[in-house]
Amino acid sequence: MGKPDLLIVGSVGLDTIHTPAEKVEHVLGGTAVFASCAASYLCNAGIVGVVGDDFSWDYEALLKDKRVDLTCLERAPGKTFFWEGAYADDMNERATLDTQLGVFADFSPKIPDSHRSVPFLFLGNIHPQLQLDVLNRMTDAPVIAADTMNFWMTDTLELLKQVVRRVDIMLVNDSEAKQFTGKTDVLTAADAILGMGPKMVIIKKGDHGAMLFAKKQIFVVPAVPLRTAKDPTGAGDTFAGGMMGYLAKMGKCDFTIMRQAIVMGTVMASFTVEDFSVNRLAKVDGAMIKQRVDLIRELTAFEDIRL
Amino acid sequence: MGKPDLLIVGSVGLDTIHTPAEKVEHVLGGTAVFASCAASYLCNAGIVGVVGDDFSWDYEALLKDKRVDLTCLERAPGKTFFWEGAYADDMNERATLDTQLGVFADFSPKIPDSHRSVPFLFLGNIHPQLQLDVLNRMTDAPVIAADTMNFWMTDTLELLKQVVRRVDIMLVNDSEAKQFTGKTDVLTAADAILGMGPKMVIIKKGDHGAMLFAKKQIFVVPAVPLRTAKDPTGAGDTFAGGMMGYLAKMGKCDFTIMRQAIVMGTVMASFTVEDFSVNRLAKVDGAMIKQRVDLIRELTAFEDIRL
Repeated sequence: MGKPDLLIVGSVGLDTIHTPAEKVEHVLGGTAVFASCAASYLCNAGIVGVVGDDFSWDYEALLKDKRVDLTCLERAPGKTFFWEGAYADDMNERATLDTQLGVFADFSPKIPDSHRSVPFLFLGNIHPQLQLDVLNRMTDAPVIAADTMNFWMTDTLELLKQVVRRVDIMLVNDSEAKQFTGKTDVLTAADAILGMGPKMVIIKKGDHGAMLFAKKQIFVVPAVPLRTAKDPTGAGDTFAGGMMGYLAKMGKCDFTIMRQAIVMGTVMASFTVEDFSVNRLAKVDGAMIKQRVDLIRELTAFEDIRL
Repeated sequence: MGKPDLLIVGSVGLDTIHTPAEKVEHVLGGTAVFASCAASYLCNAGIVGVVGDDFSWDYEALLKDKRVDLTCLERAPGKTFFWEGAYADDMNERATLDTQLGVFADFSPKIPDSHRSVPFLFLGNIHPQLQLDVLNRMTDAPVIAADTMNFWMTDTLELLKQVVRRVDIMLVNDSEAKQFTGKTDVLTAADAILGMGPKMVIIKKGDHGAMLFAKKQIFVVPAVPLRTAKDPTGAGDTFAGGMMGYLAKMGKCDFTIMRQAIVMGTVMASFTVEDFSVNRLAKVDGAMIKQRVDLIRELTAFEDIRL
């Protein structure tokens, strides 16, 4: 396969998920799984991560079937990362019931020379020190996107700021953008993050869609309206994977390409929320993707206005 | 002037508003004021409402200056409707500090024969019985839009349902749509409201924009991104006025025209939030409106995606 176009660093894990309607146990999950599965439709994606010796070979086969490069997916003695969460009635709030780091506790990303010169890199939401470690191992100045969460904005805030200064694209959700910057609205929060170094900032707003900010430019995309939403777990990671996969496919990331990439991320995320794990995301095809891209265009289209 | 194209029923009042940065006292406000001021750029709009004998002639002059038809604006002995509210830091939450109905307590909409055959009617957020009273006085089956709020969804729920059954376009915000229908997401809530009779439902989402629903069709518009937001009071009423004003200007309301009308409402609302009262909304012109329409188009535009 050669080296991937896109390297994705993040958790590969098992999720137990309670929604108002259903419960599933120990299903395949984790940032790198959702992101690589989405990216697999667009480019050669590889995972940097670790699983325990309890990780099902069926799950590994599923990723291989999507042609995901697993060269940097380590299998270590011990338990695979596990997360258990429950969603409230409106699916917008969730509570973590259990987190067991397992082999992820001592995760130290190992990247062979062959994979240090990939053109696109996505740093999923992990400890900022690990994100920095990966950055330090890259040789050819890839286009870098990073995700994070509120958890890293207290004790590891200074490390997180170092990460933000070194990435091209920062992803963060709306409440975290405000927390990180101390601003009270997403626009000035995005401005503040842009001021720290990234060329672009993406504010994720869940079922309100997403916003992309660059200096003096904004792009807004709605979420795909879904009457069939089942489980939002992994939607943000899928969004990032779809976006980075599109950038890797196109080989660049100016604002025009980024608009398209954000739409692609939105479309991919819509498949993820329609079922648990990657049950739906792993089974889409080009026609289904195109149909949702067209739907987003139609959703926001309006004819010339008479004044 | 003859009869208006659009009749707007709602409060004309005085607001005292506290924002994190500023406080203003007894400024011109109320649904009918914001809605008619927005509509005035697009059609001949008239107000149905009541003010007290304390209502400043300067405020009346401001409305006349916008060519708003005040034939049905009654001046009654007593105090003008007064509302005092305070916004939290992020401007998304507000608390009502005081409400004094004044002459609005005994408001009974009076509509002369000349105004009973208008082609477009907007029923602002008032007691559902008053909304029904106005509906019963119309002679020529106008296109009707109605707004409401959570306050009318408890004791007057049955009356509100009667209103909903009789209007063409129902406006409601996202949390109220869920409360009104008992649904947990806005899509099924909108479906449920459509099932009650209206041809279209608009879900207002504040700084997340708005969604328009008809049977099997959805349109989504983002809010205008504003770094200069000062006071959101009246934004929803302005939105409704801009939307209805555009429909009245075009003389119809199919889904194509409604998309444009929703954009117009969004643009008008963006002017309102940039200053207190109608300070900014009353001073815009066609070029400023067109610039923001173009901005919304640019915000959501993306080129064809390669797959």
